[in-house]
Amino acid sequence: MAGIGRRAREASLATAKASTQQKNAALNALADTLLAREGALLEANAQDMAAGRESGLDAALLDRLELTPARIAAMAEGVRQIAGLPDPVGAIRDLARRPSGIQLGRMRVPLGVVGIIYESRPNVTADAAALCLKSGNASVLRGGREALQSNQAIAACIGEALSAAGLPEAAVQVLDFTEREAVRLMVTLPEYIDVVVPRGGKGLVAAVSEGARVPVIKHLDGICHVYLHDAAPAQMAVDIAVNAKTQRFGTCNTMETLLIARSRLEELLPPVAQGMRAKGVELRGCAACREVDAQMQPASEEDWATEYLAPVLSIRAVDDFEAALAHIRQYSSGHTEAIVTADHATAMRFLREVDSSSVMVNASTRFADGFEYGLGAEIGISTDKFHARGPVGLEGLTSEKYIVFGEGQIRE
Amino acid sequence: MAGIGRRAREASLATAKASTQQKNAALNALADTLLAREGALLEANAQDMAAGRESGLDAALLDRLELTPARIAAMAEGVRQIAGLPDPVGAIRDLARRPSGIQLGRMRVPLGVVGIIYESRPNVTADAAALCLKSGNASVLRGGREALQSNQAIAACIGEALSAAGLPEAAVQVLDFTEREAVRLMVTLPEYIDVVVPRGGKGLVAAVSEGARVPVIKHLDGICHVYLHDAAPAQMAVDIAVNAKTQRFGTCNTMETLLIARSRLEELLPPVAQGMRAKGVELRGCAACREVDAQMQPASEEDWATEYLAPVLSIRAVDDFEAALAHIRQYSSGHTEAIVTADHATAMRFLREVDSSSVMVNASTRFADGFEYGLGAEIGISTDKFHARGPVGLEGLTSEKYIVFGEGQIRE
Repeated sequence: MAGIGRRAREASLATAKASTQQKNAALNALADTLLAREGALLEANAQDMAAGRESGLDAALLDRLELTPARIAAMAEGVRQIAGLPDPVGAIRDLARRPSGIQLGRMRVPLGVVGIIYESRPNVTADAAALCLKSGNASVLRGGREALQSNQAIAACIGEALSAAGLPEAAVQVLDFTEREAVRLMVTLPEYIDVVVPRGGKGLVAAVSEGARVPVIKHLDGICHVYLHDAAPAQMAVDIAVNAKTQRFGTCNTMETLLIARSRLEELLPPVAQGMRAKGVELRGCAACREVDAQMQPASEEDWATEYLAPVLSIRAVDDFEAALAHIRQYSSGHTEAIVTADHATAMRFLREVDSSSVMVNASTRFADGFEYGLGAEIGISTDKFHARGPVGLEGLTSEKYIVFGEGQIRE
Repeated sequence: MAGIGRRAREASLATAKASTQQKNAALNALADTLLAREGALLEANAQDMAAGRESGLDAALLDRLELTPARIAAMAEGVRQIAGLPDPVGAIRDLARRPSGIQLGRMRVPLGVVGIIYESRPNVTADAAALCLKSGNASVLRGGREALQSNQAIAACIGEALSAAGLPEAAVQVLDFTEREAVRLMVTLPEYIDVVVPRGGKGLVAAVSEGARVPVIKHLDGICHVYLHDAAPAQMAVDIAVNAKTQRFGTCNTMETLLIARSRLEELLPPVAQGMRAKGVELRGCAACREVDAQMQPASEEDWATEYLAPVLSIRAVDDFEAALAHIRQYSSGHTEAIVTADHATAMRFLREVDSSSVMVNASTRFADGFEYGLGAEIGISTDKFHARGPVGLEGLTSEKYIVFGEGQIRE
């Protein structure tokens, strides 16, 4: 692992100073190669799928693992989109003269070496490699054991594309061993690895963070709330609530708890409940909710703290804005919260006071992702506040240094 | 410590939503109180000084520890300057409409609770408390044992100022125990403390980072280089080199190694050596340097890797730009590097390729500090690349969240 780290550190010198054209040439070559190698990729993936079936992987995992011609095309298209994004490296901002006469500014620079630890989806290999390269970083990728053959086949395409563009192959290293030990080593080598991004479930994130001596961009749960305020327009309230829960059940920006102003409970709960049930959502509510809707199961303390990732929703009536805020403060995972209200002052207070990576007024929590935010792609969604928060794209993989243009200034 | 953490976390809700006026009122009240309590501060400090003398603190440490009426006035003035800085909290940038119709922007928010661990200078207590409060954070301050009485006297002023402005006293907690155990506890309570900033020598930073489960904004050594390039204007080269070394010896942005283009060695080394020796600097050089200047002691491998913080300078001749870059890459601590050159392309390559928190063209490394950079004050200078890099002022104590203004948008 130290050898891998050393090679990555060395390659990072080349990726840091690579021109935009050179990086884009490598990315476009990668997209071409992925398409040209469709047969080899499908073959490698078939081996993983067979091994997965044999070892009894469940249907959902097998679905994530599978490559199809359409998925390979989408992977190539994703890489091409990253080539099309503006290059963050070298951008200079806030260049201004100081009283001493020096001109001070800030230049965006790569972090150096990025470690990515992920699970079964093989497309993450191409995606993560492309984001790291475009942001001028070298990367070390450690995918799931179940996707080993697929990842190695993608790695071969990446190596070829890097060479074709005159970049060192060590700029992207896809580990061909997947032991837990690899993870432990990656997060304890700060001299070689500048940041580690775990992409996967809570268990993976916890395992990676445990004992890490390298900064980790963490994505913990998405326990997201929508709050239907006293001044919520009725139709908008119902539409946003139903969309935030039902547009997709398994994503981290899906609403898990709905808060409804008590003053509007009798009016809003029935159409919300109807909309949810029409999409097969099981409802669990507080006592006040169950007085309005007797069909509902009672919500337990545990429900408020649960990321269902499933067609289950907890609903709670709140007396006022403060009560809504207090509930969010206690149970939110800091991912995404939304309010529906027509009242401007309330909207602005919610934006200011809710301490989550995305805070929304009159929009569905489902918008909280890198693609919708125009980052082009995301390496993850950070629920940390340090360094990067919310969807992390190219900018989150960079840092800024101060630059000074002088004309011989010395300090008196 | 957990109780202190809990109170800090709770107070951070109040500081996060405090208005600019309220925060500034507290800071101006603090400045007034420090001046009004001059007698009490001097008395407390006299106790620390007496204890320090008794326990055999050296003269430099006693000097740092001492409060005088002038130093108290400077401390009050520093706090007032922080009150005068723009409030970073709540600033919104890049508000723009996305194809979905939502308006997306980023709002600057406090980190939450900041822990500061520092050594003997009592003025850090007021300074750090003021920076944390202005940036909307609660803070937990742990000063040096030798400054305990002084720090407690300053803490009393802070508490009074917070109360006068209607802010919770727990917004700034100055620990009245200074055991190493306090440090260990602070860095292992991520649920209560969001970031820890050690202000002090390498030993302190290493002790704080060891086993930290909370992010640490680290400031390690300042092994800073000035590179006199082949195209350096002669007088500018000499002036900047002498200033970067001799304007102050003990600061982290002081030059410790001078690199001189071999093509200019015979021309530039004699006036540089004369300027340095006139200020009492001992010179240690490579073989080529010693051929030009026989008085010079030889520089060892260890010299290139040493932060002298003293009137000692190592000097090395470099064959070309690549050799200069390679030396910097190997020995620099990533703090501040400067080049002196009249050649534009070389200047721009140096700016891009040197991976330090400040990179300068034709200016003295001594400019690399928060005051010269217009941050008003600094909580430290980060040699990390993650989160904050270079002088860390109010912005480094904040994060940004995404905000979304919708008009009922749902995801299709």
